[in-house]
Amino acid sequence: MTYTLILLRHGESEWNAKNLFTGWVDVELSDKGRSEAVRGGEQMRDADLLPDIVHTSLLRRAINTAHTALNACDRHWIPVKRDWRLNERHYGDLQGKDKKQTKEQYGEEQFMLWRRSYDTPPPEIADDNEWSQAGDARYAELGDAMPKTECLKDVVARMVPYWESDIVPDLRAGKTVLVAAHGNSLRALVKHLDGISDEDIAGLNIPTGMPLVYRLDDSMRPTVPGGEYLDPEAAKAAAEAVANQGK
Amino acid sequence: MTYTLILLRHGESEWNAKNLFTGWVDVELSDKGRSEAVRGGEQMRDADLLPDIVHTSLLRRAINTAHTALNACDRHWIPVKRDWRLNERHYGDLQGKDKKQTKEQYGEEQFMLWRRSYDTPPPEIADDNEWSQAGDARYAELGDAMPKTECLKDVVARMVPYWESDIVPDLRAGKTVLVAAHGNSLRALVKHLDGISDEDIAGLNIPTGMPLVYRLDDSMRPTVPGGEYLDPEAAKAAAEAVANQGK
Repeated sequence: MTYTLILLRHGESEWNAKNLFTGWVDVELSDKGRSEAVRGGEQMRDADLLPDIVHTSLLRRAINTAHTALNACDRHWIPVKRDWRLNERHYGDLQGKDKKQTKEQYGEEQFMLWRRSYDTPPPEIADDNEWSQAGDARYAELGDAMPKTECLKDVVARMVPYWESDIVPDLRAGKTVLVAAHGNSLRALVKHLDGISDEDIAGLNIPTGMPLVYRLDDSMRPTVPGGEYLDPEAAKAAAEAVANQGK
Repeated sequence: MTYTLILLRHGESEWNAKNLFTGWVDVELSDKGRSEAVRGGEQMRDADLLPDIVHTSLLRRAINTAHTALNACDRHWIPVKRDWRLNERHYGDLQGKDKKQTKEQYGEEQFMLWRRSYDTPPPEIADDNEWSQAGDARYAELGDAMPKTECLKDVVARMVPYWESDIVPDLRAGKTVLVAAHGNSLRALVKHLDGISDEDIAGLNIPTGMPLVYRLDDSMRPTVPGGEYLDPEAAKAAAEAVANQGK
């Protein structure tokens, strides 16, 4: 008996296409992103790997990816749970900034530290910054606990408790669970599942719109480390493209 | 203190446009239907009437209407509940049939009886009919209780218990509730809310894509009988168009 978990990173957003830091800014999918979501749904359909329940972040690029992919595999009707703890990493004061300009301004070393170090968050975003989420109704329950910046370690610290409290019970109930989320919230989860070190996680890139399937044993450990992409060749090429972002 | 309920009938579907009986057949919205859903969301946004939670049927035309309308008013992130008891009336053996041909075959009287009488269901659909939902995973929990045809009385008998058990508690918790559903499941709810007689409900038509707002008192009775459309003139014109369907 194994449990089936499917991870799906949202397709390209309008800001991915523009090379801006996005974080919690709630941007739309691009047309390419919508096509990626359809393809992800078709891959699940063709593999007969059909989710029984879906978990999403509170951001429309993940919500729309889930909706579009599920519509494509005729699973639009399954139960939905949404939680801020599946959100992308909060990118602090970098939100809304151009990646190339940021690198020129702060230098390659600082730029890569913010992007890839495990425990160095960017500077906090000011409440009056136009890209701040201060006052956004969807985070009202968080109050003062709402992040103003995050490093990957912070994402792990919020993601793993949600995994334990909300996703694992659905898996143990025998459901095939789809998690539609973001590059860094999924890296946080994969780090936990595969026991990846704080150093090695920097080298892990999850491609967009490609269902990544984990079969988990009774201890919720992967039976195949790293999981399996439904289309491994396409996933490998896409992960390399992500790694080259901002270069 | 009043409670706020918003009813939204899905926009035009591909089969509305073709004039076929749809019922539980899970057809897509037409392009016009998607535009109607956007407009419904914009009306909620412009009226500053923003749902805190949404209930939908298990059919993609209602699910997609909710998704599209909520995206348009920046409420795509709210909690979602789905239930078969919000589904359209099951149209029995008429599902998939052309409305005009059906009227010619059975005569105006029988046609109007099936469409408008409170307690006369169409003949049951056979399990091997291509438009049957027998074996559809989303209804697996229903087992032998899955309808094979329904009259409006049957819809009331499933809709009102869901209203009491699932929607009223959300209202009493102070949430603005959006119900995105179908012509007949919403007629069933409105019949209950407004205390409309079995005879008079035949004359009630709910237009597509137009948010209908009920402010309810502590006994969950409407403070304004019939509720209020955010755009009353457009709703009146649209309801008359629905009444003329099949004529």
